[in-house]
Amino acid sequence: MKVGIIMGSTSDLPVMQEAIDILKGFDIEVEVDIVSAHRTPDKLFDYGKHAHTRGIAVIIAGAGGAAHLPGMVASLSPLPVIGVPVKSRNSIDGWDSILSILQMPGGVPVATVALDGAKNAGILAAQIIGTSDKCVLDKVLVYKEGLKQKVIEGAKSVHKK
Amino acid sequence: MKVGIIMGSTSDLPVMQEAIDILKGFDIEVEVDIVSAHRTPDKLFDYGKHAHTRGIAVIIAGAGGAAHLPGMVASLSPLPVIGVPVKSRNSIDGWDSILSILQMPGGVPVATVALDGAKNAGILAAQIIGTSDKCVLDKVLVYKEGLKQKVIEGAKSVHKK
Amino acid sequence: MKVGIIMGSTSDLPVMQEAIDILKGFDIEVEVDIVSAHRTPDKLFDYGKHAHTRGIAVIIAGAGGAAHLPGMVASLSPLPVIGVPVKSRNSIDGWDSILSILQMPGGVPVATVALDGAKNAGILAAQIIGTSDKCVLDKVLVYKEGLKQKVIEGAKSVHKK
Amino acid sequence: MKVGIIMGSTSDLPVMQEAIDILKGFDIEVEVDIVSAHRTPDKLFDYGKHAHTRGIAVIIAGAGGAAHLPGMVASLSPLPVIGVPVKSRNSIDGWDSILSILQMPGGVPVATVALDGAKNAGILAAQIIGTSDKCVLDKVLVYKEGLKQKVIEGAKSVHKK
Amino acid sequence: MKVGIIMGSTSDLPVMQEAIDILKGFDIEVEVDIVSAHRTPDKLFDYGKHAHTRGIAVIIAGAGGAAHLPGMVASLSPLPVIGVPVKSRNSIDGWDSILSILQMPGGVPVATVALDGAKNAGILAAQIIGTSDKCVLDKVLVYKEGLKQKVIEGAKSVHKK
Amino acid sequence: MKVGIIMGSTSDLPVMQEAIDILKGFDIEVEVDIVSAHRTPDKLFDYGKHAHTRGIAVIIAGAGGAAHLPGMVASLSPLPVIGVPVKSRNSIDGWDSILSILQMPGGVPVATVALDGAKNAGILAAQIIGTSDKCVLDKVLVYKEGLKQKVIEGAKSVHKK
Amino acid sequence: MKVGIIMGSTSDLPVMQEAIDILKGFDIEVEVDIVSAHRTPDKLFDYGKHAHTRGIAVIIAGAGGAAHLPGMVASLSPLPVIGVPVKSRNSIDGWDSILSILQMPGGVPVATVALDGAKNAGILAAQIIGTSDKCVLDKVLVYKEGLKQKVIEGAKSVHKK
Amino acid sequence: MKVGIIMGSTSDLPVMQEAIDILKGFDIEVEVDIVSAHRTPDKLFDYGKHAHTRGIAVIIAGAGGAAHLPGMVASLSPLPVIGVPVKSRNSIDGWDSILSILQMPGGVPVATVALDGAKNAGILAAQIIGTSDKCVLDKVLVYKEGLKQKVIEGAKSVHKK
Repeated sequence: MKVGIIMGSTSDLPVMQEAIDILKGFDIEVEVDIVSAHRTPDKLFDYGKHAHTRGIAVIIAGAGGAAHLPGMVASLSPLPVIGVPVKSRNSIDGWDSILSILQMPGGVPVATVALDGAKNAGILAAQIIGTSDKCVLDKVLVYKEGLKQKVIEGAKSVHKK
Repeated sequence: MKVGIIMGSTSDLPVMQEAIDILKGFDIEVEVDIVSAHRTPDKLFDYGKHAHTRGIAVIIAGAGGAAHLPGMVASLSPLPVIGVPVKSRNSIDGWDSILSILQMPGGVPVATVALDGAKNAGILAAQIIGTSDKCVLDKVLVYKEGLKQKVIEGAKSVHKK
Repeated sequence: MKVGIIMGSTSDLPVMQEAIDILKGFDIEVEVDIVSAHRTPDKLFDYGKHAHTRGIAVIIAGAGGAAHLPGMVASLSPLPVIGVPVKSRNSIDGWDSILSILQMPGGVPVATVALDGAKNAGILAAQIIGTSDKCVLDKVLVYKEGLKQKVIEGAKSVHKK
Repeated sequence: MKVGIIMGSTSDLPVMQEAIDILKGFDIEVEVDIVSAHRTPDKLFDYGKHAHTRGIAVIIAGAGGAAHLPGMVASLSPLPVIGVPVKSRNSIDGWDSILSILQMPGGVPVATVALDGAKNAGILAAQIIGTSDKCVLDKVLVYKEGLKQKVIEGAKSVHKK
Repeated sequence: MKVGIIMGSTSDLPVMQEAIDILKGFDIEVEVDIVSAHRTPDKLFDYGKHAHTRGIAVIIAGAGGAAHLPGMVASLSPLPVIGVPVKSRNSIDGWDSILSILQMPGGVPVATVALDGAKNAGILAAQIIGTSDKCVLDKVLVYKEGLKQKVIEGAKSVHKK
Repeated sequence: MKVGIIMGSTSDLPVMQEAIDILKGFDIEVEVDIVSAHRTPDKLFDYGKHAHTRGIAVIIAGAGGAAHLPGMVASLSPLPVIGVPVKSRNSIDGWDSILSILQMPGGVPVATVALDGAKNAGILAAQIIGTSDKCVLDKVLVYKEGLKQKVIEGAKSVHKK
Repeated sequence: MKVGIIMGSTSDLPVMQEAIDILKGFDIEVEVDIVSAHRTPDKLFDYGKHAHTRGIAVIIAGAGGAAHLPGMVASLSPLPVIGVPVKSRNSIDGWDSILSILQMPGGVPVATVALDGAKNAGILAAQIIGTSDKCVLDKVLVYKEGLKQKVIEGAKSVHKK
Repeated sequence: MKVGIIMGSTSDLPVMQEAIDILKGFDIEVEVDIVSAHRTPDKLFDYGKHAHTRGIAVIIAGAGGAAHLPGMVASLSPLPVIGVPVKSRNSIDGWDSILSILQMPGGVPVATVALDGAKNAGILAAQIIGTSDKCVLDKVLVYKEGLKQKVIEGAKSVHKK
């Protein structure tokens, strides 16, 4: 099982890199591509229709402004699609990105994460794979333990003051 | 020259009917269809790619919530696309509809009108046709004169009180 | 694999019923419970910590206002958690529900769907199960075909007018 | 056919320049002027009433804050008016500019583009002229092909990494 | 000194009537008219340019949606203009009406009151006249005393419970 | 007749200075003071109750965040009160300042101007004084002519390019 | 120790009654009054300055729109003040009420509860009294146990279906 | 009586330090800890359940984004909980932090202060302790007098100009 990560523009890469990194940390294969709903609609169609036939299990799609990429790929693919609203340069504080990804009509869900929340998109993809892969589920449990330890160390540094 | 009017669902028809009616009032031919970006993506692709090859000059697209229809058809067609944000049942006061139509990225414009503003979409389509059709331009001038007369009559009724 | 559906109050049931119904339509087992983050925190803890040990693969959590249930269960469980923002009686047009579910910090994702989008939460859960269950994936494909047919029929009824 | 580009203040020029540049790229004649709805209402009236009588086919109007220029010129002219909401210095994140351009009453449309979306205003003007000028329509098709190539190159650079 | 009350449409009259009533209660002469910025721009120009030459001291202008009437009349007249944002049928919860009246650029103020706050517009007009008319100032003081008495009576009724 | 200008904190002075400057440009006497609704309520009461008895004709009050100064002085004084919402350091993009000044209840108006719109507050105060002082009214007319000339010069510089 | 409950208008009583009822349920004495910041500023001053000298330990203040009552009483009194934003008739979906109560400047806190959250204001007042009154603290613990039981019963009714 | 101050992350400390400082200025004992609702739920449970049994009278909890810490600790503890919405790096202008703390359901209040308003949280905690500790109440009165003096000095500096 691999995760397909797509974004509307190379300018989204700095945000989306966090999804790539976290998945690699979980030893999950990722395939990264630039697919623009508005500038390469044919590529979008091809991508959405065939992703599930070539080993991709989960799609992560990031886009900003009137962000149609996650919803459109969800319309074309039977796979779970995770949408990352990107606070791009012309976005209105991210509201446009969020609402155009989140508010999908009944029948075509997009699993939306927080604004610029690509790291969480990666974790969510791992959790989805973890529903059938015990090894990945265990890695998620270890990851959560790591989050906890970091807070405990932060608490210690505060107590010392 | 005819105007193609599409909408994501038959439930948008009561709002979009105003565009149909005003264009018929201008004696402009309209072609109405239901095209859902999320449920009939193939139809969307076919529609967007070929509209300009079969006599359509302007496309009016209405949709609500995460409204991707206007932007996606604009990505596929070289024609001017007018987007009508529809305040559908699950829309968040219309903000989602507006932002996901209005905030298109550079390169792919959608001419957005007011929330539920299908009447204005129709007038705008007529004005676009009027740029090359003197007869339609004159009808727009007559229409504007009619708007003025209605206000003047309203003023008279207020003065009488 | 079964789906755990929880909500903060019985008053959320009319909204959340759509998730139950759609999953039953996919022949996926569901387990429904009322778990309030603010009124039964012990039950929340117990639920979150043990869901993955008793056959639950995906959790759907619905809540309104300052909606902490989805995020808190996500903090406790390694499973994918789908959050449904409910436009409850005292919610401010749903903005509070959406933001307190969507804007989770890095490390603890919630897969957020549209406001009152319980049906989509159910479909998303099916898609997640479908990543390892070919039979469910096929049902999702059939479901999407059904969405398409309904639009095509709607289009026919419009053409007849 | 030429395009009239007006803006409320010289401070809007850096944003509006993108409309000028894109139209020049399409070999479409542009006429640029500063017209302030609030400071030169007489000039606004003169401009709006006579634009269509002196060869202008489409008007692009940019303004920020309580942005009345696009709507007022639309009230005075039978031509299609494209409104560019400018995120000016005192604008509240652009919301005031957007809403005071977009939410025109029935009868007087403004074709609104994204916040600071002057480039898209220029493309839209070209598309409008393209409805009767096959040569411009072809240029729009070439332009869209260029957008696509740029994404494909971006994708290649990502694949190399 | 009289107060000119204008509104964009007869449909605004139920809201604006409160301004008329309160001013009549202060024995201040009012002149009511329908002036639409978008449908009767010539009347707007004539009104704005000459109001101060025919005995009007203060202008109250009410409008909804992309509400340009108050700002445009302020651009044309040297008189103080009070703007009443009207929550009209197509307004987005009143935000469009408020922002397009309030956010006027430097140089052209509109004295904006609360959404549908026509009563306060009337009181404000009286206060403005009261700056040079001691008799009206005294009436304002009496009015404020009346507000106080009403609260005191309300308090009594609560104490009785 | 003089104008009283008050603000909640010396940190508001850079914004409010524009009101002082414009009024001095109109040769209108101003009296500047720091009055905090929340930190010097007694001073507020004294100011509000007696301003009209010592030659002040109009009050300009600027404040940010939960901005109660304009509304509270309006509750205490029969004079017209102009409120300037200040986008202070802790303000939420100015929304709190605007809404807590604008949305006054029926009976107690505040003439609200744009966010940080102190210049317009000064002009509005001059217009109010101009309702009874022909000389100030003429200065307002001259000022508006100056605004126009500046736009015309800006237009010339654009045409030269 | 008693709790002073004030509100700007008798029209706020249906909302504020929940605070009265819950405190009576905790056997805590309440004193209810109508105090309008804008219509009875003298009463507000008297109330705020002397509440702590006559046995009141906590003040609950409810108001809507540009809601100045909670903040002004907090400026006058050294007691903890709980603010209840009321979604009054003219409020803009409650945003104005919330922001003008919540966003108090440094030095003068108001303990703000949810929109129309008078019940929670009452519980919070009880919790404050509970910091020094063991008996009230125990009642709060019992109350929380009751909340839990109600959810558990709701869960049972759902399981039966 | 001591005040427990908790926050979700050490990155919240710069904001929360103001609460620590002001309470120390009132000679009130504070206990600071890092408790993350999402990363250390066990610690949260332990903290919330036992705070009142070990001398803590008031809890101040600061968090940003989907801020669940204040509400969850309020669900677990019978003590008054003061919530500080922190405008953290990924927060959407603070709206998510505010709404997910403020909009608690009936039964479980959080005393919310302004965005980043940790200083006010500290003062509020002092006021709560002051309800039973005359000495602290007197310090609050002295503090308020200090606020007043600072404004009066600011006013003097303005008058000198």
